[in-house]
Amino acid sequence: MTFRITIGPRIRKSPYFDATVAAGVSDMTVYNHMYMPTGFGDFEAEYRRLVETVALWDVAAERQVQIAGPDAARLVQMLAPRDISKMKVGQGRYALLSDVTGKLINDPVLLKLADDRFWFSIADSDMEYWVGGIAAALGLDVEVSEPDVSPLAIQGPNAPLVMADLFGDWVRELKYFAFRETELDGIPLILARSGWSKQAGFEIYLMDGTRGTDLWDRVMSAGLPHGIGPGSPNVVERTEGDLLSWGADTRPDANALELGLGAFINLDMAPDFIGKEALTKIRAEGPKRRRVGLFIEPPTLEPSDHNWPMQDLDGNAAGLISVAVPSIRLQRNIAIALVNTPLADAGTRLVVETPSGPRQAEVTALPFIQPG
Amino acid sequence: MTFRITIGPRIRKSPYFDATVAAGVSDMTVYNHMYMPTGFGDFEAEYRRLVETVALWDVAAERQVQIAGPDAARLVQMLAPRDISKMKVGQGRYALLSDVTGKLINDPVLLKLADDRFWFSIADSDMEYWVGGIAAALGLDVEVSEPDVSPLAIQGPNAPLVMADLFGDWVRELKYFAFRETELDGIPLILARSGWSKQAGFEIYLMDGTRGTDLWDRVMSAGLPHGIGPGSPNVVERTEGDLLSWGADTRPDANALELGLGAFINLDMAPDFIGKEALTKIRAEGPKRRRVGLFIEPPTLEPSDHNWPMQDLDGNAAGLISVAVPSIRLQRNIAIALVNTPLADAGTRLVVETPSGPRQAEVTALPFIQPG
Repeated sequence: MTFRITIGPRIRKSPYFDATVAAGVSDMTVYNHMYMPTGFGDFEAEYRRLVETVALWDVAAERQVQIAGPDAARLVQMLAPRDISKMKVGQGRYALLSDVTGKLINDPVLLKLADDRFWFSIADSDMEYWVGGIAAALGLDVEVSEPDVSPLAIQGPNAPLVMADLFGDWVRELKYFAFRETELDGIPLILARSGWSKQAGFEIYLMDGTRGTDLWDRVMSAGLPHGIGPGSPNVVERTEGDLLSWGADTRPDANALELGLGAFINLDMAPDFIGKEALTKIRAEGPKRRRVGLFIEPPTLEPSDHNWPMQDLDGNAAGLISVAVPSIRLQRNIAIALVNTPLADAGTRLVVETPSGPRQAEVTALPFIQPG
Repeated sequence: MTFRITIGPRIRKSPYFDATVAAGVSDMTVYNHMYMPTGFGDFEAEYRRLVETVALWDVAAERQVQIAGPDAARLVQMLAPRDISKMKVGQGRYALLSDVTGKLINDPVLLKLADDRFWFSIADSDMEYWVGGIAAALGLDVEVSEPDVSPLAIQGPNAPLVMADLFGDWVRELKYFAFRETELDGIPLILARSGWSKQAGFEIYLMDGTRGTDLWDRVMSAGLPHGIGPGSPNVVERTEGDLLSWGADTRPDANALELGLGAFINLDMAPDFIGKEALTKIRAEGPKRRRVGLFIEPPTLEPSDHNWPMQDLDGNAAGLISVAVPSIRLQRNIAIALVNTPLADAGTRLVVETPSGPRQAEVTALPFIQPG
């Protein structure tokens, strides 16, 4: 079951589009109204580069919602479930965004660029309208915009070597989610220690959309001695390491507490934020579902094409699979699921409805593989 | 340059997904986080069905943002540039949504289902967050949600025959954008006179996502005597007839006045709406750009893959092409563009940067083909 993706002006091309075509991109998705590469024709080689050497990913579709102006910090604090007053310029934080009912509507990284300027580096939902609607309704003195900023990810155990060769040894001292504004042969950028993998990694936030191929080629050249090659956010590595995929894992109505993200939400701090009241109530009552791992019996599965349903052994609905893949490092079928709380203990046996028929599965703890 | 589209759980399948696969869908896009068919392998046959007989389209990706509760009408009036107090239950209106700067952020159809319940039937941007953010900020007594509603479009000159066979002769009396709640063999739905083509057309808003194949098969069977076949929103027909494609024609910063949509915005009514102040200022100053048609010289073009830039004959930037296609009925290359106002008069000659090199073009009035 394969289909061509329509290439037209309604979806934007990334600044790295031409470079990824030259590198042999074969598969695409759409993310934040932009084409995003998902494969270069050899999935296992791309996976090996990510976990053994280093991979270069076009993640320009990770757009920035910029909030600038006198009321910027006040608005960010209304949205983010962390104490923003403790953030310094140059720091980033994982900042889950919830609506008034507690539903998780995006899981961005928040970057503090100045006391009056922030970016939410977003997953695939239009947070410009959430932030902009609230600012408009309250008449806040802020400008909400999408700047010309397009991330390029360098992920894998050799990523620090590539970045040190390009930028100098200071990159090794960057703490996770910390960033610094700099340039590379005149290409303006922000370098951050971040990325959507459990490997070592950096993201270069390109700040001039006309320089995409220039930047791609420079990183690729610097990476050659370290085994670099093209890749993309990797569904197997992210499942093994238990990284949240907003949209796949959260649809249609999940909250951060049942997703196991309570550590990133400060319900006990003084500042209020949208969703705090609903999440406090959910915490008191206990989440009705839980995010768990599953081992699914052989034979080897194709990666899941949608959220497969699950039943308990009596045939009652048990929840939905978020993602199921054959783990390359574990050599068995693994999955992440949102399961009704009474069925969420390790060892519980469930039945998964796959396109090739029902399969037995067993609940297990996450992650499947610890970062090492 | 063709790429596979990745099929995975992050993007939702439509209730008609299996039916379109059985009907031979070959091409897909993503729209409102959902797969949407864009081709069944024979573009010209699909076009001919649309303009000569009747076509069946999976447009489930046209999602509904439901606003329900005591403050629903008040909230809708804050957003929509029409006088909502004049709408009756069962009526629809084209209701352009602008942000505080006047930028067009979506161009939905607004349906009034009850005095305290409305749907925005949206184009491809997450208006749930715009509407929900404003409601949250103001503490309005409304619920903003996405109901289980998935449109199926029946478009083409024979569409009224198919719909009358299925539902009865009353469908012929429906005014444009009017709708009625009904059912078909127990399948709950709303039937509306609407659709994204300049042909006669209806949309069935399926209200039970488990019944997609049932509904698709019933419409297909009823349509066989009238020449029905599968199709999708058609880039050539929409360009010939000058239908706006939000995203393609509007990115990144266009306002409704420069897009030629002033007739749908009532800047002189009493109620305020978000964007009114900015648009009033733009009207007073005159829009800096205008939406125009272009004839582009032979040979026959491939449909545009992105927003091609244009220059005037002195080499100065003139604007961007929204869409360029070979017109099947006119047998020449046509395009829609957003052009700097001094260059927008019919007869002005411009140069378009296509992937195969520069082409001469001439500005002309829209639409290329009047509905007949």
